[in-house]
Amino acid sequence: MFQVGIIGAGRIGKLHAEHIQRTSMARVRSVSDVDIQNLDSWATSLHIPVVTDNYQDLLQDPEIGAVFICSPTSTHSTIIQEAAQAGKHIFCEKPVSFSVETTELALQAVREANVMLQVGFNRRFDHNFKKVRDTVQGGVIGQPQVLRITSRDPEPPSAEYVAKSGGLFMDMMIHDFDMARYVMQSEVVEVYAQGANLIDPKISEMNDIDTAVVLLTFANGAIGIIENSRKAVYGYDQRIEAFGSKGSIATENDRPSTAVISTSDGVMMDKPLYFFLERYAQAYVQEIEDFFRSIQGEFPIVCNGNDGLQAERLARAAKESLVAGRPIKLNHMNVLEAM
Amino acid sequence: MFQVGIIGAGRIGKLHAEHIQRTSMARVRSVSDVDIQNLDSWATSLHIPVVTDNYQDLLQDPEIGAVFICSPTSTHSTIIQEAAQAGKHIFCEKPVSFSVETTELALQAVREANVMLQVGFNRRFDHNFKKVRDTVQGGVIGQPQVLRITSRDPEPPSAEYVAKSGGLFMDMMIHDFDMARYVMQSEVVEVYAQGANLIDPKISEMNDIDTAVVLLTFANGAIGIIENSRKAVYGYDQRIEAFGSKGSIATENDRPSTAVISTSDGVMMDKPLYFFLERYAQAYVQEIEDFFRSIQGEFPIVCNGNDGLQAERLARAAKESLVAGRPIKLNHMNVLEAM
Amino acid sequence: MFQVGIIGAGRIGKLHAEHIQRTSMARVRSVSDVDIQNLDSWATSLHIPVVTDNYQDLLQDPEIGAVFICSPTSTHSTIIQEAAQAGKHIFCEKPVSFSVETTELALQAVREANVMLQVGFNRRFDHNFKKVRDTVQGGVIGQPQVLRITSRDPEPPSAEYVAKSGGLFMDMMIHDFDMARYVMQSEVVEVYAQGANLIDPKISEMNDIDTAVVLLTFANGAIGIIENSRKAVYGYDQRIEAFGSKGSIATENDRPSTAVISTSDGVMMDKPLYFFLERYAQAYVQEIEDFFRSIQGEFPIVCNGNDGLQAERLARAAKESLVAGRPIKLNHMNVLEAM
Amino acid sequence: MFQVGIIGAGRIGKLHAEHIQRTSMARVRSVSDVDIQNLDSWATSLHIPVVTDNYQDLLQDPEIGAVFICSPTSTHSTIIQEAAQAGKHIFCEKPVSFSVETTELALQAVREANVMLQVGFNRRFDHNFKKVRDTVQGGVIGQPQVLRITSRDPEPPSAEYVAKSGGLFMDMMIHDFDMARYVMQSEVVEVYAQGANLIDPKISEMNDIDTAVVLLTFANGAIGIIENSRKAVYGYDQRIEAFGSKGSIATENDRPSTAVISTSDGVMMDKPLYFFLERYAQAYVQEIEDFFRSIQGEFPIVCNGNDGLQAERLARAAKESLVAGRPIKLNHMNVLEAM
Repeated sequence: MFQVGIIGAGRIGKLHAEHIQRTSMARVRSVSDVDIQNLDSWATSLHIPVVTDNYQDLLQDPEIGAVFICSPTSTHSTIIQEAAQAGKHIFCEKPVSFSVETTELALQAVREANVMLQVGFNRRFDHNFKKVRDTVQGGVIGQPQVLRITSRDPEPPSAEYVAKSGGLFMDMMIHDFDMARYVMQSEVVEVYAQGANLIDPKISEMNDIDTAVVLLTFANGAIGIIENSRKAVYGYDQRIEAFGSKGSIATENDRPSTAVISTSDGVMMDKPLYFFLERYAQAYVQEIEDFFRSIQGEFPIVCNGNDGLQAERLARAAKESLVAGRPIKLNHMNVLEAM
Repeated sequence: MFQVGIIGAGRIGKLHAEHIQRTSMARVRSVSDVDIQNLDSWATSLHIPVVTDNYQDLLQDPEIGAVFICSPTSTHSTIIQEAAQAGKHIFCEKPVSFSVETTELALQAVREANVMLQVGFNRRFDHNFKKVRDTVQGGVIGQPQVLRITSRDPEPPSAEYVAKSGGLFMDMMIHDFDMARYVMQSEVVEVYAQGANLIDPKISEMNDIDTAVVLLTFANGAIGIIENSRKAVYGYDQRIEAFGSKGSIATENDRPSTAVISTSDGVMMDKPLYFFLERYAQAYVQEIEDFFRSIQGEFPIVCNGNDGLQAERLARAAKESLVAGRPIKLNHMNVLEAM
Repeated sequence: MFQVGIIGAGRIGKLHAEHIQRTSMARVRSVSDVDIQNLDSWATSLHIPVVTDNYQDLLQDPEIGAVFICSPTSTHSTIIQEAAQAGKHIFCEKPVSFSVETTELALQAVREANVMLQVGFNRRFDHNFKKVRDTVQGGVIGQPQVLRITSRDPEPPSAEYVAKSGGLFMDMMIHDFDMARYVMQSEVVEVYAQGANLIDPKISEMNDIDTAVVLLTFANGAIGIIENSRKAVYGYDQRIEAFGSKGSIATENDRPSTAVISTSDGVMMDKPLYFFLERYAQAYVQEIEDFFRSIQGEFPIVCNGNDGLQAERLARAAKESLVAGRPIKLNHMNVLEAM
Repeated sequence: MFQVGIIGAGRIGKLHAEHIQRTSMARVRSVSDVDIQNLDSWATSLHIPVVTDNYQDLLQDPEIGAVFICSPTSTHSTIIQEAAQAGKHIFCEKPVSFSVETTELALQAVREANVMLQVGFNRRFDHNFKKVRDTVQGGVIGQPQVLRITSRDPEPPSAEYVAKSGGLFMDMMIHDFDMARYVMQSEVVEVYAQGANLIDPKISEMNDIDTAVVLLTFANGAIGIIENSRKAVYGYDQRIEAFGSKGSIATENDRPSTAVISTSDGVMMDKPLYFFLERYAQAYVQEIEDFFRSIQGEFPIVCNGNDGLQAERLARAAKESLVAGRPIKLNHMNVLEAM
């Protein structure tokens, strides 16, 4: 049984802790947060022995073999470097940082310490998206030609959240950039981004966008389309379609039930599962199970540091394209060599 | 080009006439009805040369090779006998009659005159039901084991209609009895009927039912289920499912569009096509085209006199079962010999 | 935290134990089985302190507040009576027994001891079926008129299992009898059963059937249809449709993913989730959570002893109807009074 | 009854003639084609009295009130001008021409002669697309924010066809440009096109593309995405999705039947209707009916000359964007004034 430390006990840190406690593979030994008020009763109910306001306690605990970094993005790179030096395997929430250079520092430390790093792109572990990846990889649709990802949130985040989010591309579409690479297994060589403010003026005031469509050109010649909206009134819209020389695969949203109600008003189905906690409940469990399996050597990390870095590069390129009003080329080869 | 006479210019007679005028295979030469007031302008618009209140005119017209009998059910058998004796091919609306003996008289005349008779079970020509029949016949679902037919009208007929209808089994479920034989290609050896009055008290007052479920036992051992309701508020519900040793085939309703609308209220689709004229528009065209092709010798009549007779026998057995409160066996062999 | 004893550590007993260990509401203190070889390592991995081959140990343990009876059906009634006398709350797998009288003895003991009894009709806790029940109860489809339940297993059980199963009606369709009462909230007053041997001759040799269709007449006048097959080659087929004066609600099967693959061969979707462990994974978790909540007084037992008894009565009536070849009436009132 | 002349008796010219002969609103009086060999028997079977190899005969026939221009695109503008001067109402296949200037000459003549001109964007009359347009127009999805159109052919055209086609944007995507304007009811102010050769090297040799994604910016701020492929092995893929502040509407493909076949291999549905003749059969009928109704004054032309012109402008802008590798702005106002 792995002993695990959780750094950052916000919503996602708590979620990971609860999932770990339910697996038969690991146990949470410590949890740290800058604010540990009100944390004790939660920790007790989960049988977590140690609560601390100093994450260094976790890094120095020799019993702990792996840490989950769930603190604010601005702290990720530093903690990764310290955890790597302390010899801990690392699960880090996305994005690793807002800057390619800062992320590369973290990856450098991980490589030097020879520990494992998994980045929290949870959607790779979702039953629908995994089916798409496996189907494309299995050659069922032949040579991929067009990829389309639709990703819409049920409602925009708070102004406070937006302010610290890094912007729509880095905060929201970064999941889709990662998904695009995961499904296509080909790097992106050009990005063209179009954005708009159609939903919430506050987002515009913070110099961010709420609606975006991005075109990707993959090294294999295929074209990718990512659609993002901060507000779909019918709920969390998470779909994908891959089209190729031998066919296509497309997924629909998951819904609370399969019921179809027919009345004189029409034929009605459930709305999609509300938001990411509901939609990706299974994926959050699977990603930590796979993390521990990778540490045990069963298979390579499904979403490693380079995956984190590449998605961040795409997010930055999209921002640059939006500002410049023209497509941006990515010199992919150099970066891979640098890795 | 076949020259055709239409006997009975009610809704269905007019529909057939319009479809015939659009084909390249036949033309309507005459139409007869007991009430020819207001019929002239309709006939003129369709380029129908002759309108008469005496159907004998049609039978005696040597130019006419085929007649469509769309008059009230009570007149069908007599007119079939006369038309057969006049050497005309015959398309007759369902049911041939309300009595097995009366129907057999008509079939006898058809056999003796060596003309062709097609009974108007239009659903055999529907794209969905035909796909089910062809799939079952092709062995895709293996040995059929269970057949389910759902057939619900959008609203109950008028009291006048019910009074002359012959009852739910003979008027409405007769289509489903025919469909059951068409799909299963096996005769029914036992019928158990359950009925209820849940919709309209007037129907009950006329000694008829508005809701029914009938179980069929086929000669091949399979079980059939037919559901009928006189009122589905969401529209005309016409579905079928056949289940067998190698799989199943099930059809959904046709709808005016495939659009799915998602709002904060839910996810909504169109209701089914409203009623039989909309739902079976393509089937009505196909059945007359196939009728003329059969006359030309391309293939046997898809729905012949025996098919009409057998469906009527099932309707009568269902009625008998409902009254008796127990299953009714059908001595199928004897009847076939009698044929 | 409730301390729980598990009686019978077969597949379903183990499943319940694992679910209980994951909840925050209860812990498994003891597990008993006639064969405790190989049970220790499983119990240790789940932190279950006590393993015994004598279920009396559990009944006499004052720490234990509730027992889960997962032993063979033939032992249920006796153990229920003993557990009730020991003051334990009881969760008992279905059916309580194969005989109405034996079940009534158990229920009598439960009433006298004033403990709670939940019967393991897990489908009441399934997201799809619960949605149907809630929708019908909420009046959305108006007055229910027809209920249809389709329930097909992916493959027939072993000969050994069939021999002890109590027959298709008592072993398999009993879930559907319970579902019919749960959704309709009306008792069944007449049963007509039709059965066939179309799948596996061994089942026939054991005097059981593998295919069945049963018609139910509810006290409220509605008609129910239950379809069972021991073998659907495409997987576990679990659907329901309720039709009423204001509309209908129908559920589809759950599938591993929502992916739709389109190739030159056709448009393909996933098969349904394979069997009951996959299909009802969420329902198994929910039913024990609800059991503990009921014990805590949050709401009445969702599926109580009378529910168990009524489903068994319907199973017996179906068997009687099949043998007699005619519908069987249930004198529902007397039974309720006897309760 | 309108008397109609058909100019150009290729596949689409014949189709229109057949549809006209079936309506009750018009009759085909003449048909012209440069090659009238083998045309007589077809014309006779449709009761078309006159066949000529000189379309001027039609223009000079005072009985003829409307002409259908179904000749090659290069001839459209000239014939439109001549037909307008002859006082005929005009239905012209798309595109009007390959050059904005040439199209404007035709439109100028139409305006001066005060005749009606309908351009053959048949998809405006399709049941699914019309539902989308009406739903968006009705405000059901609120303020439109993103529009997505997927349009894939089942197989690439012949090299001969491609050579004369005007290229993918002018030949194929022009339908989608029109659809975008029809649904959004807002003009496009910027176009960014990305294209690829992924299917057929012959298309590349002819300096054309076979795969394209185009982004549109609408005057109302919304973003549009059009996807085109010359080869979808599963058939003709024609879908649309409009997303807005109050919800979304999305259509699925039409299929030959609604049947779902479940076997041990999976769950299978029909492929989409094969190609445009099957998919838009109803739309082709509707567009000519609406044309005659517009001539009668029932409602304005649904797809007029300006609609034709604007779609052509978008096709040209897309080509320009593809060549330049950057977005192209459209000075929409000036063009409208020029109209």
